Amino acid sequence: MERLDDLGRAGFKIIQRPGEATFSMDAVLLAHFMRGGAGDALCDLGTGTGVIPLLMVAKGKAGSAVGVEIRADLAELADRNVSLNKVEGVIRVVRADLRSVTLSDLGRREPFDVVTANPPFHRPGTGRVSPIESRAVARHELECTLEDVAQAARRLIRSGGLVGLVHLTERLVDVLAALRAEGLEPKRMRVVRDKPGGRAKLVLVEARAGGHGGLVVEPDLVVRDEGGDYSAEMKAIYDHEP
Amino acid sequence: MERLDDLGRAGFKIIQRPGEATFSMDAVLLAHFMRGGAGDALCDLGTGTGVIPLLMVAKGKAGSAVGVEIRADLAELADRNVSLNKVEGVIRVVRADLRSVTLSDLGRREPFDVVTANPPFHRPGTGRVSPIESRAVARHELECTLEDVAQAARRLIRSGGLVGLVHLTERLVDVLAALRAEGLEPKRMRVVRDKPGGRAKLVLVEARAGGHGGLVVEPDLVVRDEGGDYSAEMKAIYDHEP
Repeated sequence: MERLDDLGRAGFKIIQRPGEATFSMDAVLLAHFMRGGAGDALCDLGTGTGVIPLLMVAKGKAGSAVGVEIRADLAELADRNVSLNKVEGVIRVVRADLRSVTLSDLGRREPFDVVTANPPFHRPGTGRVSPIESRAVARHELECTLEDVAQAARRLIRSGGLVGLVHLTERLVDVLAALRAEGLEPKRMRVVRDKPGGRAKLVLVEARAGGHGGLVVEPDLVVRDEGGDYSAEMKAIYDHEP
Repeated sequence: MERLDDLGRAGFKIIQRPGEATFSMDAVLLAHFMRGGAGDALCDLGTGTGVIPLLMVAKGKAGSAVGVEIRADLAELADRNVSLNKVEGVIRVVRADLRSVTLSDLGRREPFDVVTANPPFHRPGTGRVSPIESRAVARHELECTLEDVAQAARRLIRSGGLVGLVHLTERLVDVLAALRAEGLEPKRMRVVRDKPGGRAKLVLVEARAGGHGGLVVEPDLVVRDEGGDYSAEMKAIYDHEP
């Protein structure tokens, strides 16, 4: 079953498959967090429905984008989302395994300016693995690990380019270590909290390829206010501010 | 020149030498952040005036403590602070180099339950080095690096024991990497911010020796409220809540 959703102010729409292939708040927060400009070429690793390239282009944070997706069914869905939004000249979807993909596989001579990923959060053997294969692959490190994602980012990014990840706060040490191990130096970080002073589940990290040390921990991104409503920042995000 | 200051509710006092050997808010925040109980043996690396052992004992977060200090003048000052507060049976100061110190140097058969450090924050060659030697050593990694501190903590801590550091937020990646490299797994972390949503300068990290992954990023510790007064939490800290 498919569902057509509005992707906000830019007038973009997105097809999802509830229970099987949906984008989550994680991707929306990452696109909000990342820097990037209209002249930047983006590569999104494990793009799923293609939501991150669509949002980054809609926000003017990328002028062109390639979404890499290993699963044929999801790559096809992402491709249809590109067509639906008439951005075939701007966003391309390539079915490829990020563990081995090269710039030439993606039809690029030049490395990318920005690489993003919303990788699977859980190590194999931790938590329940979904019986639905596309969900299992999106949630557990079955097809790729965090380290695979960092290695792929290093292969594809230009020197000085930005690499952005959203991940579980509980895996922050893994995230920072994996990035640094590939010469991707974490420079900005934001913790996402359910409510003010509440539990921090997600973390957003932006690293610079070949950058020097010096991390800025930006203020928390708080999802809901004390009363349980979306915070002003979240309302602005879902209204797709640029 | 020396100055005698009140260390708060427990009635402890501390001698400092303004401009030369003073404790900072960093040490106070670390003692506030750390866990520990009245049955725990604490080792404080680079203890300076001895403020962390004094505060941890005053708060009931340690039942006994050893402060390690490389500089003779500071070790002597810390020793006088111990005598001043009549805790000679509880806190000992040992003049030793943390880079080589062993449990037997500290007169211990058993490893410590808790190890703390407020290490020098700056790599040599970054920023201005103080012409006053005791200040230079406290601020720049002249006598020990972050990695030396983590290695010393590993030598001195029991399996399952807690290691706490306060450091610059901009060096968070270094801190987490140095701890993990020594099998000290970061488990709790708190960012210290000048004011709500303001710049984060300091970070508090607690690691568990031999622990498994899984970091909790606790809510920010905010120093001043919007109006510029100390926050309620800071007032409670300076009033030396247990």
